[in-house]
Amino acid sequence: MDNDRFERGKKQLETMSGVGVDAMLEKLVGIAPDLARYTVEFPYGDVVCRPGLDIKSRQVATVAALTALGNAPVQLNAHISMALNVGCTRAEIVEIITQMAVYAGFPAALNGMAVAKDVFAERDRQGLS
Amino acid sequence: MDNDRFERGKKQLETMSGVGVDAMLEKLVGIAPDLARYTVEFPYGDVVCRPGLDIKSRQVATVAALTALGNAPVQLNAHISMALNVGCTRAEIVEIITQMAVYAGFPAALNGMAVAKDVFAERDRQGLS
Amino acid sequence: MDNDRFERGKKQLETMSGVGVDAMLEKLVGIAPDLARYTVEFPYGDVVCRPGLDIKSRQVATVAALTALGNAPVQLNAHISMALNVGCTRAEIVEIITQMAVYAGFPAALNGMAVAKDVFAERDRQGLS
Amino acid sequence: MDNDRFERGKKQLETMSGVGVDAMLEKLVGIAPDLARYTVEFPYGDVVCRPGLDIKSRQVATVAALTALGNAPVQLNAHISMALNVGCTRAEIVEIITQMAVYAGFPAALNGMAVAKDVFAERDRQGLS
Amino acid sequence: MDNDRFERGKKQLETMSGVGVDAMLEKLVGIAPDLARYTVEFPYGDVVCRPGLDIKSRQVATVAALTALGNAPVQLNAHISMALNVGCTRAEIVEIITQMAVYAGFPAALNGMAVAKDVFAERDRQGLS
Amino acid sequence: MDNDRFERGKKQLETMSGVGVDAMLEKLVGIAPDLARYTVEFPYGDVVCRPGLDIKSRQVATVAALTALGNAPVQLNAHISMALNVGCTRAEIVEIITQMAVYAGFPAALNGMAVAKDVFAERDRQGLS
Repeated sequence: MDNDRFERGKKQLETMSGVGVDAMLEKLVGIAPDLARYTVEFPYGDVVCRPGLDIKSRQVATVAALTALGNAPVQLNAHISMALNVGCTRAEIVEIITQMAVYAGFPAALNGMAVAKDVFAERDRQGLS
Repeated sequence: MDNDRFERGKKQLETMSGVGVDAMLEKLVGIAPDLARYTVEFPYGDVVCRPGLDIKSRQVATVAALTALGNAPVQLNAHISMALNVGCTRAEIVEIITQMAVYAGFPAALNGMAVAKDVFAERDRQGLS
Repeated sequence: MDNDRFERGKKQLETMSGVGVDAMLEKLVGIAPDLARYTVEFPYGDVVCRPGLDIKSRQVATVAALTALGNAPVQLNAHISMALNVGCTRAEIVEIITQMAVYAGFPAALNGMAVAKDVFAERDRQGLS
Repeated sequence: MDNDRFERGKKQLETMSGVGVDAMLEKLVGIAPDLARYTVEFPYGDVVCRPGLDIKSRQVATVAALTALGNAPVQLNAHISMALNVGCTRAEIVEIITQMAVYAGFPAALNGMAVAKDVFAERDRQGLS
Repeated sequence: MDNDRFERGKKQLETMSGVGVDAMLEKLVGIAPDLARYTVEFPYGDVVCRPGLDIKSRQVATVAALTALGNAPVQLNAHISMALNVGCTRAEIVEIITQMAVYAGFPAALNGMAVAKDVFAERDRQGLS
Repeated sequence: MDNDRFERGKKQLETMSGVGVDAMLEKLVGIAPDLARYTVEFPYGDVVCRPGLDIKSRQVATVAALTALGNAPVQLNAHISMALNVGCTRAEIVEIITQMAVYAGFPAALNGMAVAKDVFAERDRQGLS
């Protein structure tokens, strides 16, 4: 049932983010409750929870892609944090973003690194790795 | 010396691709020899050879980014092949590209998968994994 | 005459936006008066006023495209408001942006929805639909 | 159940495209059967079948977005054809793509129009509107 | 009058390209005659003919932008040729495209250089610089 | 030696920007010292200092590309300022950005012009051309 997809996605997303889904999607639910639900079901209930690729590699892929695209800093912020939560080190995040200078240009890498800097500072304040 | 960067990059690229750099860059050297040299020096002699991230994760990042950007199928083809050469399985490539449907949309994922299909078919012809 | 294009575009843009062109372009006129003029003449005096597609469908197209491109939130804000002014409902705006999750990825849709949320809140303050 | 989503999406996609899903996804199924399934379930079983926006407007949005993004000509071809199948006229397709010159630049519009030209020629051969 | 813009644009474009506008736009006129007309009027009749920037610098800007965007190889081909016609050397084209490796990544630069290689070969066949 | 590349890039960047490299890269050095070093070495020590294209034309290319890409306003700000420092006039900057309306759409041009407006205002405060 769809219900299974939502529950599986909720669990996946909460495990990765350390934040309750209700709090994460609070603003979105008010305007677009179905997009909020899809955001749990398809990315986390269908795709990211799949067994064929380890969760750390999945976050490497997402941090790389969002850095390269360069137009989703809010999502990049969240995914860098989730990458750290699932086992990436800060040094590895810095490597992934640095590498994007090659494939998407220096501005994309520099802007991605500014987001990482914010994430690291926030996590320092929270006492997180 | 710059010479060190080129030699290090050449070795890195040849190890990953299984192809001699001279053959790979033959067309480019005729028109833009310095860009050909930079393509070895900076991406492979400076960045991809860095110790801070394992080579398999680096190729996960690159395959994800090129699939998401969606405008470099020739390079995506080469990097999927290099990913397979450094330890990714075909199933993992399929997972990375599938995941890009979430972050860059279904057309990007479908077009990336078409490139992967070509790579897999070519490697079948060559008896490669 | 070019003058006709400007007058036609001005009328078209003012009808859609409910704002005088002078106020809208005030900041731009000071630095780039000809770009300000072109912004009225070509988009609104040549294209958007054409009879071959109804004005509501034109705004559906523009909201979709700006959401998908993801790098013009100021313009997306203005075009969501114009879409509402020419007959789109808020529910339809939410549908268009949700659909972009399919074609441009979830980050593009989520960022577009955040812009829509701002537009709706501002219109609530102004007592607009 | 998920099964419902697939069946609903299959019916939606087949109605819009006039082509059986098995034929459409044949190449993809061989390499990435789950992405093939997701391509039916999420875009067509969840989103495009939603009642909140008429199907013609949905195709206006998709044709606009794919023209603006400019890196998915195969999908743009399919969606122009589906737009014609659900009630858009060729003249309206031409208007949507022309309008993208404003929002994404002339190269994007010219390349989108070349795709439309191919679609129209193919439909002429098939005796379709 | 609009007529003036078209005539001015036609002259500008023909001078830059060395090709008659009718031949250039032949395919487009059949499907979208107004977009064909706009393509002459706005880019060439309004913008590129402006006195505030020399024509060679204008082509430097366009070749750089199309290389960086990476999704309009047909237009990049035409603009490299026009750049050569208005005074850029082949060596300068190679420099512009090489520089895009910095700002848009190596794939964009390598793909741009492949287009330049085609243009240079075609001009060799035609005995052009 | 690599050291030569850094020193040459430092000199090039400081000449163009009028700002010391240490101040420019201060924030980046703390998180990603090697990316900071690469940002001097490759763009400025390898590419921008090359003799084959005059420095003013190089900045025309970069301002055009960053305006068209539309997702790096911080870098566009810096490059507009450097363009002015190496001999572009404000009127020429306005022309380059206006021209991007043709190749990347009006939103990209309008957002680029907003950045230029900020640069011009800041330089007015500093008494710079």
